[in-house]
Amino acid sequence: MVDEEFKSALGVLNGVMPPPLINEESVRKYKAKRKQLPSVDEFTAGILKGDLTLLSQAITLVESSLPSHAEIAQQILEHCVPFSGNSIRIGITGVPGVGKSTFIETLGLRLVNSNHKLAVLAIDPSSERSKGSIMGDKTRMEELSSHPYAFIRPSPSAGSLGGVARKTRETIILCEAAGYDTIFVETVGVGQSEVAVHSMVDFFLLLMLSGAGDELQGIKRGIMEMADLIAITKADGENIEKAERAKAEYTNALHLFPPTESQWIPKVITCSAKNITGIDDVWDNILEYIGLTKSNGYFDKTRKKQACYWMYETINQSLIDGFYHDKRIQKFLENFEKKVVDGEISPFKPAKILLEKYYKRRYIKLYYKRK
Amino acid sequence: MVDEEFKSALGVLNGVMPPPLINEESVRKYKAKRKQLPSVDEFTAGILKGDLTLLSQAITLVESSLPSHAEIAQQILEHCVPFSGNSIRIGITGVPGVGKSTFIETLGLRLVNSNHKLAVLAIDPSSERSKGSIMGDKTRMEELSSHPYAFIRPSPSAGSLGGVARKTRETIILCEAAGYDTIFVETVGVGQSEVAVHSMVDFFLLLMLSGAGDELQGIKRGIMEMADLIAITKADGENIEKAERAKAEYTNALHLFPPTESQWIPKVITCSAKNITGIDDVWDNILEYIGLTKSNGYFDKTRKKQACYWMYETINQSLIDGFYHDKRIQKFLENFEKKVVDGEISPFKPAKILLEKYYKRRYIKLYYKRK
Repeated sequence: MVDEEFKSALGVLNGVMPPPLINEESVRKYKAKRKQLPSVDEFTAGILKGDLTLLSQAITLVESSLPSHAEIAQQILEHCVPFSGNSIRIGITGVPGVGKSTFIETLGLRLVNSNHKLAVLAIDPSSERSKGSIMGDKTRMEELSSHPYAFIRPSPSAGSLGGVARKTRETIILCEAAGYDTIFVETVGVGQSEVAVHSMVDFFLLLMLSGAGDELQGIKRGIMEMADLIAITKADGENIEKAERAKAEYTNALHLFPPTESQWIPKVITCSAKNITGIDDVWDNILEYIGLTKSNGYFDKTRKKQACYWMYETINQSLIDGFYHDKRIQKFLENFEKKVVDGEISPFKPAKILLEKYYKRRYIKLYYKRK
Repeated sequence: MVDEEFKSALGVLNGVMPPPLINEESVRKYKAKRKQLPSVDEFTAGILKGDLTLLSQAITLVESSLPSHAEIAQQILEHCVPFSGNSIRIGITGVPGVGKSTFIETLGLRLVNSNHKLAVLAIDPSSERSKGSIMGDKTRMEELSSHPYAFIRPSPSAGSLGGVARKTRETIILCEAAGYDTIFVETVGVGQSEVAVHSMVDFFLLLMLSGAGDELQGIKRGIMEMADLIAITKADGENIEKAERAKAEYTNALHLFPPTESQWIPKVITCSAKNITGIDDVWDNILEYIGLTKSNGYFDKTRKKQACYWMYETINQSLIDGFYHDKRIQKFLENFEKKVVDGEISPFKPAKILLEKYYKRRYIKLYYKRK
């Protein structure tokens, strides 16, 4: 009864790994739960009405690695696509300790209190290393998370970066269909996921600490180059002077970068979530940016480019995943790996042999599925 | 007569794109040349004897995009693998202007004059942008390139980064089989190709200028983190003091990185190709590193890991290339791209449909080939 499929499905439904021991009671509960899975139409209608339970459940399906879940998720997505796109998508990044959650809570509360509907999504492929700060989102943003206009969703740390990011991209579509007009995508700013996030947002906000050089903060030049706005956080009390100095420094650094295609000149500002200063400034800059890029066509052009990017990303990921998930291929790979490591064959030889085997297996699978 | 295959083969043989107009004379010459292509055994025997013409020709076959060439190249490679591996592979990187060629010429001449056989390979996927500095290698390193113990080979700028890098990896094998005991792999240090190079060398040398912060030099933190040795170049005349200051700064910066798995403590030194100071120091450091890592097992372990990495890289690249080179799939992609851009379907939908079509086509191709 307790097969692999069940175990991983249970993990997905709970949003965590299943407990090591599974008793009959939980099997019964799971089966009951499974039978209750709504239809694609019920899901879509619920999401469009802004039903939080169905939205959460749909995101869980999107994040699931079960093929049966993936199929339903795909159908829900296709139904939601025509209702998506009507939001401002903002990427927010910064190293741990920069005060991301406090910043998001402060800005977020101001938005939901002026009737914006805000979804906060988080990508953290390295959460195991960084001690799971993101998984604690809901406790970190206590006030925001209990607000009826806010929806906070951490992404699972399992899976490849590409996979996690793609799921965040799909989650954006679901949230937009559910009526969220502002989407925050939060990352930890260590450089792995920022490129992926940059390819799914309209505006990229980089939070920086004053006092420490960007080298010490582990912020790579490439991330600074993507930023539409740099906000120096914690500019309060004794920090104000330091923050102003940092602002001047970063402003100079930004001048060294080539002009942006968007015609927007990236800015540096200081802010304090404690004193609630500069927070509105961030939002005003975002609105100004959106205004500019919508009028000069850059906004629309970028959205189209991003859609293309995700089409190709999904194809590439599917090609690679399909191959490595094939059990028979995995066996062959193990063998070849040994031979390559021992220097018996070149690292370039297995590709051709394995791919021929693989294409044959794929075709046979398709053939039997159709029969 | 003048078909696509011929055009691209001509391009490959000349190492440049073919002229826009092709006359009967060049067709005749090409055909004569083609008939002269040696057998795999002749190639292998020639390479093992250190025949430069056959080595160069074999590398050209490795770099060729023609399937018929790829097949011969593959066979030559498999024959050469058992004779490869007996060299020190050194990655050398630094931004344009840091003095890479002068440094390589100076160190290279010292090596070949003490009876080392040196191959200098260059990866430059962005050579079109950086005005082809690498294509001028032979003129840049005039004295070294005319030395009988030196072999200098720039890589073509065409193709994806993965493809170019893989070919460099294959070229290393051919050069080692031809008796080269020291291999330099040179890159331009802008961050795209350094990871690929790091995965094929034993030692990673980063050249830096004094006076400019690493931010201004465009050197990313990740590249600094890979360096086993940083050499501050042009430490001569008025520059000496500045170079010493930079040395202190970079030494401090290196202390911030976590300890390396190799147990080697990355160092910073100053050198001058003009005054020929510090050059021997670089080489001594390399030898010390090789000694340490060979005795603690890290050298061997890394080589094995790298072989695995290239096995997987080759598979991934083949999966992706196969798909995008399929003419029929390209047609479908164009159509889907339009629909995705217009928001008619989600970016996630085409993957499944296209992959099914593709696997079917692949199998049919295999089937007819076998008949």
